[in-house]
Amino acid sequence: MKTILITNVLLYKERKDVLIRGNMIHSVEPAGTIPVQEYDKIIDGSRKAIIPGFVNAHAHSAMTLFRGVGEDVPLDQWLKERIWPYEAKLDEEMVYWGAKLACVEMIRTGTTTFNDMYWHLNGTLRAAEEMGMRSVQSFTWLDNFNDEIIEQNKKQMKEAHKLSARWSPLTTFAISPHAIYTVSEKSFRYINNFAKDNGIIVHTHLAETRSEMDQAERDFGMSPTEYLNKLGLLSPSLIAAHSLWLSSDDIKLLGDNGVNTVHNPNSNLKLASGYKFKYNELRDAGANVCLGTDGCASSNNLDMIDSMKAAALLQKVWRNDPGAIPLKELMDVASLNGAKALRINTGKIAPGYLADIALVDMAKPSFVPNHYFLANLVYAANGECIDTVICDGKIIMENQIIPGQDKIYQKVQEVADRVVDYKKKKKK
Amino acid sequence: MKTILITNVLLYKERKDVLIRGNMIHSVEPAGTIPVQEYDKIIDGSRKAIIPGFVNAHAHSAMTLFRGVGEDVPLDQWLKERIWPYEAKLDEEMVYWGAKLACVEMIRTGTTTFNDMYWHLNGTLRAAEEMGMRSVQSFTWLDNFNDEIIEQNKKQMKEAHKLSARWSPLTTFAISPHAIYTVSEKSFRYINNFAKDNGIIVHTHLAETRSEMDQAERDFGMSPTEYLNKLGLLSPSLIAAHSLWLSSDDIKLLGDNGVNTVHNPNSNLKLASGYKFKYNELRDAGANVCLGTDGCASSNNLDMIDSMKAAALLQKVWRNDPGAIPLKELMDVASLNGAKALRINTGKIAPGYLADIALVDMAKPSFVPNHYFLANLVYAANGECIDTVICDGKIIMENQIIPGQDKIYQKVQEVADRVVDYKKKKKK
Repeated sequence: MKTILITNVLLYKERKDVLIRGNMIHSVEPAGTIPVQEYDKIIDGSRKAIIPGFVNAHAHSAMTLFRGVGEDVPLDQWLKERIWPYEAKLDEEMVYWGAKLACVEMIRTGTTTFNDMYWHLNGTLRAAEEMGMRSVQSFTWLDNFNDEIIEQNKKQMKEAHKLSARWSPLTTFAISPHAIYTVSEKSFRYINNFAKDNGIIVHTHLAETRSEMDQAERDFGMSPTEYLNKLGLLSPSLIAAHSLWLSSDDIKLLGDNGVNTVHNPNSNLKLASGYKFKYNELRDAGANVCLGTDGCASSNNLDMIDSMKAAALLQKVWRNDPGAIPLKELMDVASLNGAKALRINTGKIAPGYLADIALVDMAKPSFVPNHYFLANLVYAANGECIDTVICDGKIIMENQIIPGQDKIYQKVQEVADRVVDYKKKKKK
Repeated sequence: MKTILITNVLLYKERKDVLIRGNMIHSVEPAGTIPVQEYDKIIDGSRKAIIPGFVNAHAHSAMTLFRGVGEDVPLDQWLKERIWPYEAKLDEEMVYWGAKLACVEMIRTGTTTFNDMYWHLNGTLRAAEEMGMRSVQSFTWLDNFNDEIIEQNKKQMKEAHKLSARWSPLTTFAISPHAIYTVSEKSFRYINNFAKDNGIIVHTHLAETRSEMDQAERDFGMSPTEYLNKLGLLSPSLIAAHSLWLSSDDIKLLGDNGVNTVHNPNSNLKLASGYKFKYNELRDAGANVCLGTDGCASSNNLDMIDSMKAAALLQKVWRNDPGAIPLKELMDVASLNGAKALRINTGKIAPGYLADIALVDMAKPSFVPNHYFLANLVYAANGECIDTVICDGKIIMENQIIPGQDKIYQKVQEVADRVVDYKKKKKK
């Protein structure tokens, strides 16, 4: 069993020695107390801090391909003229390269686990496994209320689920009915039963925009959350991305049913979807609040530290309370809570947790002076402070170098140019 | 005269050769057209982009010393228990080290000019000149309506102004009456006359919080902006930091008088001061809108790219308009407009402008794919993408290395520990 010793590393306020055995954190002791003997690898942590690897609880990885294609245009135009026509051109190989870049970016910024929803799931799956990341890969279900598509989806989902038995232990299968405005009631009920029978996580978009809320009122005579409740979806197996436009009744439903909600502040800002995420209310009601980046076509990056900062600042300003969301709690939102939603034993630097960790390079202005590590991490720094990443006990980045990253940048540029054909665009 | 040639570098959408002669940009031509001959330095720009150095139009540099000392506490407690007692302990040497760190951080994130307001101005001045940055250093004036302090201030201000004749050409003298709630009417009028007689920039805080607005209504029977107008302060020589709580009459006054306003989004969010900065309205009225970071005690970093992102996302979300603030315009807000306010000929990559520039390392996930450079810069990247910085024709950072940076980190930690005495704090 491989061993890694990290010596004299800052864990919040104290210096520790951290020993990893196999894929687990074996011990966390005061600095200088674990004897330096024959380990497979010893890392000098004296200028570094240790944090749990982040859990990005809502991503569409391969959308890195569309980073920057639809800027400063309204949402409707963005979807119809840019994203949808481009997505129609994608194949598994393209998705694979987009997801490879996403993995490079996530690893560079300290994320070890991500919860993905996208097409051609085998592409993303292959990328994540090659890069050594933990992930939840979901079969994405849209049916636009068409019975023929529903039958096709059923068949494909069952096949995908069957194949998932052969996946690596780092990868989990999930099902993603896209949203209440693209998936029929019949499908939601079918997916829910299939998921319950097979112990599968369900991942969806919920209450992202005001217009979704208005449409649900019109079509179903109730809120999006009440509608999912009526269909029996609300449970600790549900991951509800966004959960932004909620009444107090909705919050009570999400809390009473222990639903996992995912705040994606940068995406919500960028698309002008809204900013009054009800963090305190959801937490107090009993919901599990997690953090995500959403896809790069809306949020532009996959940096969880950038997302933590946006989340914290927004809570302060919309509540008119500079004390809103304590940093230790925010750190759990970005790691431990996401791990709980994804049923993974990570998110804490403590014996008995999986060895999914990131080391922070503190020889940077953001960490000087070091009055308060977490404040420096969240408010002063960004994902570029991450120096080394370990996932499942394996070093997947060291000194900011990920093997093969330059080749990935080059390949992605080629693929992205094929999807977004500028010559053709110009001719029009 | 020294020459630097940057070959084949991306300028927004096109590849260029850029030639610097002395402290000026001499020519900007299509890539491959400036013959590579004997220049003092040739930089291969093929994996880089070129942008104007940022102009940070409102900073309190030495407050890097207080990064992270007052987090998650209300504003009142923050000032009274943390910032003010610590500031009382500062001397010129401490300010010098705090400002040295600020310069390292600003250079690393692409800023070449900053507009500072702080105590012990000689400390900041010395730091900026040693680090090779352009700056506006101001004599900070608080009087708390006390006649004795007013007379002291007059004397000290005149002395400081006299000494400024010997400063380097990179440094400009200004006067900073702190704010309408800390400076008497008499002082404002005196400062204004002195500034007009001597052609000096005046830098103040204006309309930062709701309580400032309420207090002005109560004390003066008018808004903070109307009060400054009554005192004759509104002119293109005034730099009004924050300008956040404004009526439409206030906006008209600022516009008609060509006042320079400085948006500091991260500070306003962190202190929960507000977020509805009236960008469109101020611009359309004729005010010159600039961007700043404010001090590290509130905004935590001095990263202008981080501030651009916050500014853009806030405009989109509070206006409910994903198309708000075009990126090219935002780039000017962060460079050209600040230069105009500070009366400096920088902020554009074009012949005849001062050679204050930053080179972006594009071999990073944020710039892959390169569909739209400015969107990648603002929404995906952060200040850590800056690779090389040139100020006044001199290279002050190359490949992210600033000579002496490690020693500065170490000294600042020592100084900060002296100011914030943890042992003493613990005993209490």
